[in-house]
Amino acid sequence: LVSLAAGFVDNATLPCAATQACLQQICQDQSLLRRALQYDTTLGSPRLRRSIAEWHNRHWPDSVADPDRIVLTAGSNQFLHLLAETLLDPGDIVLAASPTYFVFMGTLQGIGARVIGVPADEDGLNVDALQDQLEHLAQQGLADRVKAVYSVTEFDNPAGSTLSFPRRQQLLDLVGRWRESHGPLQIWSDNAYQLLRYHGESLPCLTSISPESSEFVVEVGTFSKSFSPGIRVGWGVAPTELLEPLLSMKSNMDFGSPHFSQVLLQQVIEQGALDEHLPTIRAGYRAKLDAMLDALKQELGDTPGVHWRQPEGGLYVWLTLPDGIDASEDSGLWQSATERGVLYVPGHYCFPAEGEPVASNTIRLSFGVQSEDGIRDGIQRLAAAIHAQS
Amino acid sequence: LVSLAAGFVDNATLPCAATQACLQQICQDQSLLRRALQYDTTLGSPRLRRSIAEWHNRHWPDSVADPDRIVLTAGSNQFLHLLAETLLDPGDIVLAASPTYFVFMGTLQGIGARVIGVPADEDGLNVDALQDQLEHLAQQGLADRVKAVYSVTEFDNPAGSTLSFPRRQQLLDLVGRWRESHGPLQIWSDNAYQLLRYHGESLPCLTSISPESSEFVVEVGTFSKSFSPGIRVGWGVAPTELLEPLLSMKSNMDFGSPHFSQVLLQQVIEQGALDEHLPTIRAGYRAKLDAMLDALKQELGDTPGVHWRQPEGGLYVWLTLPDGIDASEDSGLWQSATERGVLYVPGHYCFPAEGEPVASNTIRLSFGVQSEDGIRDGIQRLAAAIHAQS
Repeated sequence: LVSLAAGFVDNATLPCAATQACLQQICQDQSLLRRALQYDTTLGSPRLRRSIAEWHNRHWPDSVADPDRIVLTAGSNQFLHLLAETLLDPGDIVLAASPTYFVFMGTLQGIGARVIGVPADEDGLNVDALQDQLEHLAQQGLADRVKAVYSVTEFDNPAGSTLSFPRRQQLLDLVGRWRESHGPLQIWSDNAYQLLRYHGESLPCLTSISPESSEFVVEVGTFSKSFSPGIRVGWGVAPTELLEPLLSMKSNMDFGSPHFSQVLLQQVIEQGALDEHLPTIRAGYRAKLDAMLDALKQELGDTPGVHWRQPEGGLYVWLTLPDGIDASEDSGLWQSATERGVLYVPGHYCFPAEGEPVASNTIRLSFGVQSEDGIRDGIQRLAAAIHAQS
Repeated sequence: LVSLAAGFVDNATLPCAATQACLQQICQDQSLLRRALQYDTTLGSPRLRRSIAEWHNRHWPDSVADPDRIVLTAGSNQFLHLLAETLLDPGDIVLAASPTYFVFMGTLQGIGARVIGVPADEDGLNVDALQDQLEHLAQQGLADRVKAVYSVTEFDNPAGSTLSFPRRQQLLDLVGRWRESHGPLQIWSDNAYQLLRYHGESLPCLTSISPESSEFVVEVGTFSKSFSPGIRVGWGVAPTELLEPLLSMKSNMDFGSPHFSQVLLQQVIEQGALDEHLPTIRAGYRAKLDAMLDALKQELGDTPGVHWRQPEGGLYVWLTLPDGIDASEDSGLWQSATERGVLYVPGHYCFPAEGEPVASNTIRLSFGVQSEDGIRDGIQRLAAAIHAQS
């Protein structure tokens, strides 16, 4: 069975040697080890928060990440959950690309929030359409229930799209204006894949484009994809006024995330191990992405109605099939694909319940886990299943 | 300043050497290290869950901890939060000792639950009074809103009390009968301090006394107090029917707690490092507890109206002052104590808002962090402040 479904990271490029070296350093420094074994503050290790801010500001020179506005969590998912629990009441509305990250949609729905989908394409969220949706909600008297625009800003899960520079400016303008006329709308920028760029040039993050936007943009990051999901350190940079409520909620949830992981990541950053590891991990994933795109071109390039986005990074390729072909688990395609030994994530999971129609002729393909041969093999099997449906 | 307030663990007995040895083993075993750096399942590492079950069943021979019913979290607080978020709706009722663990009260109130206090003494929760309270709630038509009895079963925070064996039986009987006549009431047994016994004999945990009670008792444990809060692995053993909802909520929250910590703890247990470390940590805390009890006797033994409980373990001593003396932060005692350079936790924080009156003439004293000399010094200062109020 070839799984192109799992969103796990590549085993081959896990940073074993770098982690070993950092663990040795911790073991040799008794006071550091003792600190790692003790509690730290609820917002997370002040030293790691400084390291993250410095590192971030070095890589995104116009960014204004401030250690005092950083909250450390066990992965960025935990930060997103914390944010949503802190700020949303049942019935509150979050706007998101259609399709969007289905795990966070589940979190939002669990809280009783409404997730409304907005059209999106290769350049990410369509900001004109977002404006229309906002105005429509205002006409319905719901302006004060719209709390956030959620954006997976780089190489998003599931569609692999990156919000273009003009759209970033447009989004910041729109939300800035809306806040003046309607209320405290925020942008939640999920940068989980930001460090996994394999082609093209980096784009500035939202708060780098507009430093004033740090009043309403929450930037969310993680080292799970770029270093190790097992160590599991994520973070958010939040507007100052959110820190007190986030701290209070985090106190109720877990008193602060595991400190040992934070000390380990601090060593990783301070010793330069993250910077050293990034080219390795990027080279590994670039080869896999290219293998998947090549295989798709070869196997499905001539199939009418089949197309896919060309991500410049991340872990996913978004595939669209001809209109009539259903890709969900009770479909003929799914049965045919599993019989041929290939698994994928049916795209319909990724569409918010409101706003845009669900396109069940879509598929999320992951290239992170399989080898290049496995990817080619998987795409061949999938193409055979697709051709059998036509 | 001598703080008898912080609930942190003792720096001196943190398991530095044992952790070093286990980290070395992980570094030398490439496949184990690689596994530690990768994601694991949302419920937590199956291998650690087996290790915890085996370890638990070895120490509490009649217990029926089953790895398939164990959920791993980043500390027991995170498990308690997960449990409360999963099972409680706003307006639901949790019954707890008065006083009880104030952090979890905050969590429950954050969810909108009502916490109702039940009288408690040296032997823990007064189960007759609990029965009266349950019947009172049933008469009010609230039987179906009472979801759990929360018990810090051993050396509780803040009062240092341990639920006696007869009361454990009585509690199991009462809740078992209530479930037959009224509905799915549960017992949430927070065993955070279970491994920190310094005097007297171990008592069987609730599910050891009555294996059938594993249908309605959730046992919660942690290695934060007994090994290291920085590694931060806690767990809950839940009734089978709760596992699916707990898993679903945990998926929304963080996808599973940090796996590196779980692999490290697994080494700690499997290599016998936990069993080796426990006598050290117990000896360290026993000396501190004895120092605090001796100092209290010497400094306050003859002061009319002052008394305290004699815990057999844990990290806290509960001090009651004469009726007229207020210990809260805006009191003369607090001012006098801080001027003399000693800090404590005012007891009033630990009383549920409903059920029993708040006794503001109470104090929680922690003996975990200070040295024996620091403890004696702190109690001398506190006694001087108390005598200055009389």
